[in-house]
Amino acid sequence: MPRSDPFKPAARVANQPQDVWSIINEAAAASPVQPIVNMGQGFFGYNPPQFVLNAAKEALDKVECNQYSPTKGRPRLKKAIAKAYSPFFGRELDPEKEVTITTGANEGMLSAFMGFLESGDEVIVFEPFFDQYVSNIEMPGGKVVYVPMHPPARGASETTSAGDWTVDIKAFEAAITPRTRMVVINTPHNPIGKVFSRDELLAIGNLCVEHNIIILSDEVYDKLYYVPFTRIATLSPEINRLTLTVGSGGKLFYATGWRVGWLIGQEHLIKYVSAAHTRICYSSVSPLQEATAIGFEEAEGHNFWEESKKEMKGKMDRFNAIWDELGLPYSDPEGGYFVLVNMAKVKLPEDYVFPPHVASRPRDFKLAWFLIVELGVAAIPPTEFFTPQNAHIVEDWLRFAVCKDDEILERAHERLRGLKKYIQ
Amino acid sequence: MPRSDPFKPAARVANQPQDVWSIINEAAAASPVQPIVNMGQGFFGYNPPQFVLNAAKEALDKVECNQYSPTKGRPRLKKAIAKAYSPFFGRELDPEKEVTITTGANEGMLSAFMGFLESGDEVIVFEPFFDQYVSNIEMPGGKVVYVPMHPPARGASETTSAGDWTVDIKAFEAAITPRTRMVVINTPHNPIGKVFSRDELLAIGNLCVEHNIIILSDEVYDKLYYVPFTRIATLSPEINRLTLTVGSGGKLFYATGWRVGWLIGQEHLIKYVSAAHTRICYSSVSPLQEATAIGFEEAEGHNFWEESKKEMKGKMDRFNAIWDELGLPYSDPEGGYFVLVNMAKVKLPEDYVFPPHVASRPRDFKLAWFLIVELGVAAIPPTEFFTPQNAHIVEDWLRFAVCKDDEILERAHERLRGLKKYIQ
Ligand SMILES: Cc1ncc(COP(=O)(O)O)c(C=O)c1O
Ligand SMILES: Cc1ncc(COP(=O)(O)O)c(C=O)c1O
Repeated sequence: MPRSDPFKPAARVANQPQDVWSIINEAAAASPVQPIVNMGQGFFGYNPPQFVLNAAKEALDKVECNQYSPTKGRPRLKKAIAKAYSPFFGRELDPEKEVTITTGANEGMLSAFMGFLESGDEVIVFEPFFDQYVSNIEMPGGKVVYVPMHPPARGASETTSAGDWTVDIKAFEAAITPRTRMVVINTPHNPIGKVFSRDELLAIGNLCVEHNIIILSDEVYDKLYYVPFTRIATLSPEINRLTLTVGSGGKLFYATGWRVGWLIGQEHLIKYVSAAHTRICYSSVSPLQEATAIGFEEAEGHNFWEESKKEMKGKMDRFNAIWDELGLPYSDPEGGYFVLVNMAKVKLPEDYVFPPHVASRPRDFKLAWFLIVELGVAAIPPTEFFTPQNAHIVEDWLRFAVCKDDEILERAHERLRGLKKYIQ
Repeated sequence: MPRSDPFKPAARVANQPQDVWSIINEAAAASPVQPIVNMGQGFFGYNPPQFVLNAAKEALDKVECNQYSPTKGRPRLKKAIAKAYSPFFGRELDPEKEVTITTGANEGMLSAFMGFLESGDEVIVFEPFFDQYVSNIEMPGGKVVYVPMHPPARGASETTSAGDWTVDIKAFEAAITPRTRMVVINTPHNPIGKVFSRDELLAIGNLCVEHNIIILSDEVYDKLYYVPFTRIATLSPEINRLTLTVGSGGKLFYATGWRVGWLIGQEHLIKYVSAAHTRICYSSVSPLQEATAIGFEEAEGHNFWEESKKEMKGKMDRFNAIWDELGLPYSDPEGGYFVLVNMAKVKLPEDYVFPPHVASRPRDFKLAWFLIVELGVAAIPPTEFFTPQNAHIVEDWLRFAVCKDDEILERAHERLRGLKKYIQ
């Protein structure tokens, strides 16, 4: 008897609602304003710095840089990362035992979940969340437990700090159960732009110590902070013992397509992340690991970290001037390259016709569609980063990525002035 | 109450016996003969062809080649693969629907298992097998069902063809149960060097059609065949409908560290592989996808496929001359770059002291240790590619990778002559 369902997908991939990226791309293709100013996805509109590109090209000439790297990563890269991060961690990181290289931060986080979660284990995730967390937790059978963050009370009427988004520590504590295995933190935060305060991190960290919960701290935007930045791993030895810190070469060196990421943590955590990574990808891309290593080695000599932060903060402030001009409030980022703008004052024409798959989504999808089709500017509807029941929290906001050429930001200004006539 | 086991790994990574690669590396470090001639792991001892390297360097200068690629892969690469493979498949492959790009063949196969396997589903794997299959099948909860292949009857006494390793179709049929979801085939085969015959593939394929079993055909060595090569996907429309074919840019273009792979298959299969890949890695390395695309576009102009096959076959034959000289039988490969050599005639000194973790393994581990430490030549013990109960089948064999510089092969010859005094 042949099985009747040979092509039935596994449940983990069967549920494929049209994702935000394809909706946005479809709108972009449909827009009469071409080319679109794309401030949607968080890729860079410019190249990695020349010293990193040169390093990549030189690596391509070396036989061993084109062949399999050790599964845990190239020793040179692990060493460079240990050296670069030891000062922040306040102790010497062991490159061989406390650093492991992954295929981007994304597969690094999947490796952490695969390394520790058994079916039914719970992972606490704050809303909004980077969308890959959810599928990555569910793949090994984990269950996501959501704790919403809350927007600034006056976020719809005036520009506020991204730091005014609050985490409710009581709600976090209430979400902990005997099955809670891990919590995911993201600072600087995508999409909020919040840098978690020392007090917030300490409160979260101490609860994790109390309940022995592993902390996965996604710090991929860790060079882009515009207020003091705290790493949860550094708050106490007890918290350190439980913390895996995630980094991304793609984010640091403007090369999101290079797929080089890493996790830092004590050996009792890192070794299982490496073991899972070996089973998932075997090893990660060799020549670009080498280039990332050289990037770290030479960054200070080029004053790169400082320049890179200054440059991004400059883009952020220049871009956000348009909201002041239009009188639309935004959540002023404390870090990263995303800004959330509140569009409650934008009145969409009542007779405007949205395609059904947009009409059926929260208001932010309609705002995004309208901006693309009418003005030629793409942004991301942030309800995508929330569960349906909490989506209402951000249905008036849109997320813009400012990691784009200044000329693109300038063009965005020109086009966004077209919003004036819809603002009441 | 804090949980008492915060660092307990998930079962899927907890079981970490010392793997063959680290035993071999440890032996290599311990050997008085330095540097080792490493014919163990299947990475290339030379660079990708210049036209592909140039393409990679040019890609690095393009902004969009350094940023996220579409999750399913760069359109240019999918098009190049569809164009290159359509003639073999005897029909026009749709680049957008029938090709998907992955992070090496490895993560591509994991994506296929993740796309289709539910906990308890069975996957038939022939022994010997590429070691990653097992963990990749088990990760989504699949169960591996093994079907051993059998060495040539006179393999210990005379050199035979790798094609004389047999698959027992009756044993395959007997292994099929109502829970059988997939079968994995590998041709040209690692480590055997067998190219499955049309008849063998047809017998396997027809049984899969009868039982509606998805066929995952790992064809990463598909340009290196020294006898006629058949792709199972091309044998009938019914088989095609069930087949996913796996390829690897790393293997084709001498760049195992690039981590660019792909799967080809009909839309009803590919779409779930893509969905799983998106959740695992998000997207794959952009500049090296671009270079791989250009590699395909320009390969014929450089007569690369033919040259590459001729070159590898030349290495294979030149290297194997040493076994004729020593009077050791080998299994003459029909494809790929691995050769299995039968060492039954090699008498290891009776008082030779092996470290305990080698002494406790089958004889091929001892042979491998001895060759490294005494002669300075590294090979792989193939029992690693078998389950313990069938390991005895290959305990007299060693696997050598010939994808190395001619000068290295020459040095291997010189060193392997040192075996003479141990051969009876
Ligand atoms: C918060 C966050 N974590 C992780 C990632 C993924 O990083 P990578 O590209 O290194 O996989 C992103 C990318 O947008 C992100 O925003
Ligand atoms: C049979 C087989 N399949 C798959 C792979 C993995 O290929 P990739 O490096 O593209 O992940 C290998 C590598 O040795 C192999 O031998």
